Amino acid sequence: MLLQKKDKLVMIGDSITDCGRKKPEGEGRNDSYGHGYVDMVNAFLQSVYPQLGVRVINMGISGNTVRDLADRWQTDVIDHQPDWLSIMIGINDVWRQYDLPQVMEKHVYIEEYENTLRDLVQRTKPSVKGLILMTPFYIEPNASDWMRAAMDQYGAVVKRIAEENGAVFVDTQKAFEPVLEHIYPATLAWDRVHPNSTGHMTLARAFLNAIGFSWNGEQ
Amino acid sequence: MLLQKKDKLVMIGDSITDCGRKKPEGEGRNDSYGHGYVDMVNAFLQSVYPQLGVRVINMGISGNTVRDLADRWQTDVIDHQPDWLSIMIGINDVWRQYDLPQVMEKHVYIEEYENTLRDLVQRTKPSVKGLILMTPFYIEPNASDWMRAAMDQYGAVVKRIAEENGAVFVDTQKAFEPVLEHIYPATLAWDRVHPNSTGHMTLARAFLNAIGFSWNGEQ
Amino acid sequence: MLLQKKDKLVMIGDSITDCGRKKPEGEGRNDSYGHGYVDMVNAFLQSVYPQLGVRVINMGISGNTVRDLADRWQTDVIDHQPDWLSIMIGINDVWRQYDLPQVMEKHVYIEEYENTLRDLVQRTKPSVKGLILMTPFYIEPNASDWMRAAMDQYGAVVKRIAEENGAVFVDTQKAFEPVLEHIYPATLAWDRVHPNSTGHMTLARAFLNAIGFSWNGEQ
Amino acid sequence: MLLQKKDKLVMIGDSITDCGRKKPEGEGRNDSYGHGYVDMVNAFLQSVYPQLGVRVINMGISGNTVRDLADRWQTDVIDHQPDWLSIMIGINDVWRQYDLPQVMEKHVYIEEYENTLRDLVQRTKPSVKGLILMTPFYIEPNASDWMRAAMDQYGAVVKRIAEENGAVFVDTQKAFEPVLEHIYPATLAWDRVHPNSTGHMTLARAFLNAIGFSWNGEQ
Amino acid sequence: MLLQKKDKLVMIGDSITDCGRKKPEGEGRNDSYGHGYVDMVNAFLQSVYPQLGVRVINMGISGNTVRDLADRWQTDVIDHQPDWLSIMIGINDVWRQYDLPQVMEKHVYIEEYENTLRDLVQRTKPSVKGLILMTPFYIEPNASDWMRAAMDQYGAVVKRIAEENGAVFVDTQKAFEPVLEHIYPATLAWDRVHPNSTGHMTLARAFLNAIGFSWNGEQ
Amino acid sequence: MLLQKKDKLVMIGDSITDCGRKKPEGEGRNDSYGHGYVDMVNAFLQSVYPQLGVRVINMGISGNTVRDLADRWQTDVIDHQPDWLSIMIGINDVWRQYDLPQVMEKHVYIEEYENTLRDLVQRTKPSVKGLILMTPFYIEPNASDWMRAAMDQYGAVVKRIAEENGAVFVDTQKAFEPVLEHIYPATLAWDRVHPNSTGHMTLARAFLNAIGFSWNGEQ
Amino acid sequence: MLLQKKDKLVMIGDSITDCGRKKPEGEGRNDSYGHGYVDMVNAFLQSVYPQLGVRVINMGISGNTVRDLADRWQTDVIDHQPDWLSIMIGINDVWRQYDLPQVMEKHVYIEEYENTLRDLVQRTKPSVKGLILMTPFYIEPNASDWMRAAMDQYGAVVKRIAEENGAVFVDTQKAFEPVLEHIYPATLAWDRVHPNSTGHMTLARAFLNAIGFSWNGEQ
Amino acid sequence: MLLQKKDKLVMIGDSITDCGRKKPEGEGRNDSYGHGYVDMVNAFLQSVYPQLGVRVINMGISGNTVRDLADRWQTDVIDHQPDWLSIMIGINDVWRQYDLPQVMEKHVYIEEYENTLRDLVQRTKPSVKGLILMTPFYIEPNASDWMRAAMDQYGAVVKRIAEENGAVFVDTQKAFEPVLEHIYPATLAWDRVHPNSTGHMTLARAFLNAIGFSWNGEQ
Repeated sequence: MLLQKKDKLVMIGDSITDCGRKKPEGEGRNDSYGHGYVDMVNAFLQSVYPQLGVRVINMGISGNTVRDLADRWQTDVIDHQPDWLSIMIGINDVWRQYDLPQVMEKHVYIEEYENTLRDLVQRTKPSVKGLILMTPFYIEPNASDWMRAAMDQYGAVVKRIAEENGAVFVDTQKAFEPVLEHIYPATLAWDRVHPNSTGHMTLARAFLNAIGFSWNGEQ
Repeated sequence: MLLQKKDKLVMIGDSITDCGRKKPEGEGRNDSYGHGYVDMVNAFLQSVYPQLGVRVINMGISGNTVRDLADRWQTDVIDHQPDWLSIMIGINDVWRQYDLPQVMEKHVYIEEYENTLRDLVQRTKPSVKGLILMTPFYIEPNASDWMRAAMDQYGAVVKRIAEENGAVFVDTQKAFEPVLEHIYPATLAWDRVHPNSTGHMTLARAFLNAIGFSWNGEQ
Repeated sequence: MLLQKKDKLVMIGDSITDCGRKKPEGEGRNDSYGHGYVDMVNAFLQSVYPQLGVRVINMGISGNTVRDLADRWQTDVIDHQPDWLSIMIGINDVWRQYDLPQVMEKHVYIEEYENTLRDLVQRTKPSVKGLILMTPFYIEPNASDWMRAAMDQYGAVVKRIAEENGAVFVDTQKAFEPVLEHIYPATLAWDRVHPNSTGHMTLARAFLNAIGFSWNGEQ
Repeated sequence: MLLQKKDKLVMIGDSITDCGRKKPEGEGRNDSYGHGYVDMVNAFLQSVYPQLGVRVINMGISGNTVRDLADRWQTDVIDHQPDWLSIMIGINDVWRQYDLPQVMEKHVYIEEYENTLRDLVQRTKPSVKGLILMTPFYIEPNASDWMRAAMDQYGAVVKRIAEENGAVFVDTQKAFEPVLEHIYPATLAWDRVHPNSTGHMTLARAFLNAIGFSWNGEQ
Repeated sequence: MLLQKKDKLVMIGDSITDCGRKKPEGEGRNDSYGHGYVDMVNAFLQSVYPQLGVRVINMGISGNTVRDLADRWQTDVIDHQPDWLSIMIGINDVWRQYDLPQVMEKHVYIEEYENTLRDLVQRTKPSVKGLILMTPFYIEPNASDWMRAAMDQYGAVVKRIAEENGAVFVDTQKAFEPVLEHIYPATLAWDRVHPNSTGHMTLARAFLNAIGFSWNGEQ
Repeated sequence: MLLQKKDKLVMIGDSITDCGRKKPEGEGRNDSYGHGYVDMVNAFLQSVYPQLGVRVINMGISGNTVRDLADRWQTDVIDHQPDWLSIMIGINDVWRQYDLPQVMEKHVYIEEYENTLRDLVQRTKPSVKGLILMTPFYIEPNASDWMRAAMDQYGAVVKRIAEENGAVFVDTQKAFEPVLEHIYPATLAWDRVHPNSTGHMTLARAFLNAIGFSWNGEQ
Repeated sequence: MLLQKKDKLVMIGDSITDCGRKKPEGEGRNDSYGHGYVDMVNAFLQSVYPQLGVRVINMGISGNTVRDLADRWQTDVIDHQPDWLSIMIGINDVWRQYDLPQVMEKHVYIEEYENTLRDLVQRTKPSVKGLILMTPFYIEPNASDWMRAAMDQYGAVVKRIAEENGAVFVDTQKAFEPVLEHIYPATLAWDRVHPNSTGHMTLARAFLNAIGFSWNGEQ
Repeated sequence: MLLQKKDKLVMIGDSITDCGRKKPEGEGRNDSYGHGYVDMVNAFLQSVYPQLGVRVINMGISGNTVRDLADRWQTDVIDHQPDWLSIMIGINDVWRQYDLPQVMEKHVYIEEYENTLRDLVQRTKPSVKGLILMTPFYIEPNASDWMRAAMDQYGAVVKRIAEENGAVFVDTQKAFEPVLEHIYPATLAWDRVHPNSTGHMTLARAFLNAIGFSWNGEQ
């Protein structure tokens, strides 16, 4: 597995990452990590690799776009001096274009998204052991749905930036594919965005597979 | 894996099983499965084996002893006609002897525990595909601690009944052992009983390993 | 307009009708009619035709299927002795099949839906001046979406029963079509079911057009 | 209709406009527009003219007088750069003279009212496509009632300013007249000021008629 | 003064009497008598005539009509064995005709009002030292207002019954007259029904004058 | 009566005056004047002398001593430019010596009390039509009770300052005397300080008698 | 000390005993024993004599008189089969005569008090190892205060019954005497009835001295 | 006893000291001292030595380490000018190492603990009559438990500093020993840290014995 003894992993993003985590830092007792994929990832790491003493900090904030991440990058990422950093952002960048079409100030179009995300990744890369870039997703199997189509384009941006920078890449949209063959979106998420535990487990599993996690604790 | 297409799995127990599940039936949307090992087990089954359409129902109730399970066995187990049934009970049977020593009406001593549990298992066995018996546990590495020692005796009862009845056996106390080599009990559970997500993941993993779950979804 | 002086109109249905109405009877001051299409219909009737003194009663209950309507038909419809009765039911009958696929007890399949609805209509027809049957709907423009496709079938049932019984027919799904050409579903309803005021206005307008309402108050 | 594609309409006023809207900006999902005539106007525009993509922002604040509007004019009107602006103010200017007669600091007498409103209109006129001035109203049919008589005088001021400035004029008091012939004030508003949905529909309809709205969506 | 040593006075009515009194009996410490004219009457009697030890019990219930009084007459009046009984009822009997015109089940028309009130008075008269009948009122100076005109008719009924039965008569509507010459209704009561302390003092003073109360404690 | 048309009366003090009044100014609708003697005084003035249009403002604050009054004198008295000012202070000055004997910082001994009160009165006298000084009180008939004895000394200070400055003097302790002959202190106030309505009526009556109030509204 | 290994002590009474204890049985974790003398007595017994394992159950209920104790004697005393029983009752029996003088139904006069208490003691005596009778008290040093004088008479009744039946007697009024020489009643209890921790420690100490408790744990 | 007439005793510490005390100063009526050993100590001093008028102030704050004490030493200790000062600190210094092992910023290791505590003691010693140093504790009888072992080392530091500075020393861990011979830790404290009243009485008694308190009030 990529993570090593005493490594610190910061996970940043929007409400999918946040999930009710403790503020200002998402770590500690009880519900500190929220009730989403971050909590699951941490629980996997602590229970399967207890000897590593990995430290996970959830820095997601509900409603964030990449523009919001840029605003809080220094205090919420750099100042924590992470060894590893995961980023999952973009859902709200797209969603506001589709649920608040007139409120254009809240839309983050794809050029701004790409430029901002690339800038954050390039600035951070020198000071970490590694970056893990996760695509945004939309729990809708119809690829010609307006919002799903837009989300796929934002996902492609993430992939490009990951490749440019040698980051670990997690294709969350793809991770949902086999599940959506059997389960209707409304079972996973009433709004096709905020998943239940099954959806979060799907995300956690995609993340863990990408970093070389072993179910049996092999390092 | 033991579970098959459309199987219904009922999981009964105390607060470790309950974890804030929906009442009267612990299934459905959002927090319906509670925030513990049952929710994780369900999330694993749905996300890794979506084609099976397994149905999980959480029937845990906080504070229950085996005596309480017997009282609600007909409505809460038999009437649901499960294909599979998991039972994890005994923590409160022991705990009340140690946190309310004078209130003897609330103590369930080991003879009553064994007789009641055996009776429930034997009554239910003919109508299910299989039973999964999980030991109670105490997150305390010192085996000569009074309450840990008692809990081990109750765990031995569970093992004996599992063997007598050909049930799947899950030794939860043993599952905590490798974790407790590296992590102090207070990290996992302030009261050494109600675990955080790391502890619940430990329980879920022990359960899943016992039923032949594969991380890669192999059936 | 179909409604005449002092007529009493009872409107029954699920959460789309309910919208937080007063219980047990949805009429009176302030929020008594809920915050949905029923409140709008009533406001239209009172402000444009104040001389009629029409009485509107909202009898919707959130989560109801046609099976629930049948259970409360005597007290909630017949006992009110309405002159006119509107029914909009079926969304939950379909939805539970898609958001709780394993919980089959909550599914109302199309045969039961048709038989129950027809029976209610036929029993009530003799004692009212007229019936208004509204289709269920799903705010999703993709006609091959699993749940939309199912909803269309239930809508066809409503149309058939309306025709058989000479009831006023309101095709709510069709009313959403011109709106969905320009507005993405998530703007109207995050879950594609519970609409915002724009969606409810669409429903109210479809209803009013069907009963011969005139914006200028012509009778 | 006066409003055109992508036009932005800001609606400012007191509690009749506010109706529990979201702060600081009254636009977006769910209850963002409040539960009054603004929400209805927006719902009409979106559902009947979805192709226009008109943007409505509710900037009413409960308890405001024209003096309060002047205090927040820059941030709450000018900074939003509206294409259209509607103003309905004056009820509290009058009401405080009648419900708190000794608290003279809270009274806005007619000279101050006229001067302030005229000044706001003249300052704003050059930067908008059009202004819509709505009179204050009092839901009391007796024209010699002290407060109704005063309200009529304030309404006459609004009419004068509208004419001077070529603004669209909405006589809300007159809109209530046909309704009050049949319905007693207490049915519409217990305090003769804050109307129920019937009253708000009356206001919305008066507003829409003034801007050339067509029930059938004709532009 | 009519009341004598140790006399028990029961005061029954609607929300004007209730004013948040303690249930089921309105007597005792702190807010037990509510915050209206009953509390004031009691405070006058205890502070000016402490030697009498008069006992006052507030039995008003918000929303009551004379029909509701009849329903609870045995338990709420007769069973208390009062020496004196005051009744102020009728506001809701009239009001529902004007704020809920379609909901005719809630209207108590004048014949029913008169018959019921007369019956209650005649049944009770033999067992008490005296009855005090207070008219309902409407804080509206315009005598041709629909609801005020109706209220005056109900008040005339009270007067007639008082005269027939030799009861003390309190004309509350008349008590408001000199106040309404100087103060607009909205100062006293936003809904023209539920008065502020000034209105309740007006009621208390009318009541006390009728029973021969002396400001200086003369008996 | 001393008060004349349009006069403004400010009433300052501690919790006996405050009684839950609106902050920052105790005037206006509903509970603005609190539920104590100030509310009663205002209700008397408005209902018996409606033609005067007297303005009453309650500026009491719970827990205040004369030291606290001095701290807020400019904003809470002078800035309101009262025509008449009433002061009732001293209960907490004494009480803290008896309920928190060790917390000497909170004690206001009699020299400080006298000097501060005299200073406030002398500073304010030139700018008002008149001052009304009310003694503190203790609802305890036993004059040799430690705290009652102390309170009497503080009351004597108030009397002396009133005489020196030609202020209207209200001896509240004396007003309670005839009541306490018949009623035990616990009936009036569980803590012998915060009276029920009977106690507040006693205070209001003492105040009104001192300013020449007439029950029949004679001026 | 009178209590011996495994003895069960039930303590019954009014609010002084209750102090917010757990219902229906006042024993167990955290605040189960309330925050008064019972909690202190239990804490003394457990911490100084841990080897005894004495069981204490708090059965006090706020507001109770001896009449209420009689009503619940079977379920709340007899059914618990105590080894020792303490009773402290009578405060409310007296208090209601002084704070609700007109509400005579709530007064328990001294004959009823004596007869009822004696009856309860005589019925219970045969089945317990011993009874502890505590007097009611009133935190008022003035023996000629009306209510204090009455309380002393009720205390004398308790003493008489204790002597007649060989019960342990605790004179709580006397226990307060040395404290009241130095501390004013308002420091101990704002209403002279419900003491702070100092007052409860005074009660606990009087109780413990009466049963032979030793600070050093000597048996 | 060490404390003398009018002495002021400040008690500082963490949650064991705090116990819900009033902020900012823990003294006064009702729950001001919290519900722990400080409240008991105060109750003992006031009820057994009422003539001394000792003043106790609880300055504990939940979650504090010695590092937090240093931060607030000037305002929370020095500024109060105590005659006596008790300190019980260290539990959180140790606990964070065991319940949040990765969050090293919150750990206070033994060198920092010793240096900080010694510094505080030496700075304060000259200005007080005496210091009382209480060890931290852990309610766990197994001396080889990781956290108990660490706590014992911190306790040894306290003892050393007490001896160096002539302070009164209270070995709280030792005080629990005889209790833990008979009672399992979970009875006293579910988390082995926050004790019930039995545990707090154990602490209070250890404290009182150390300062020469006599159960019979001997000075």
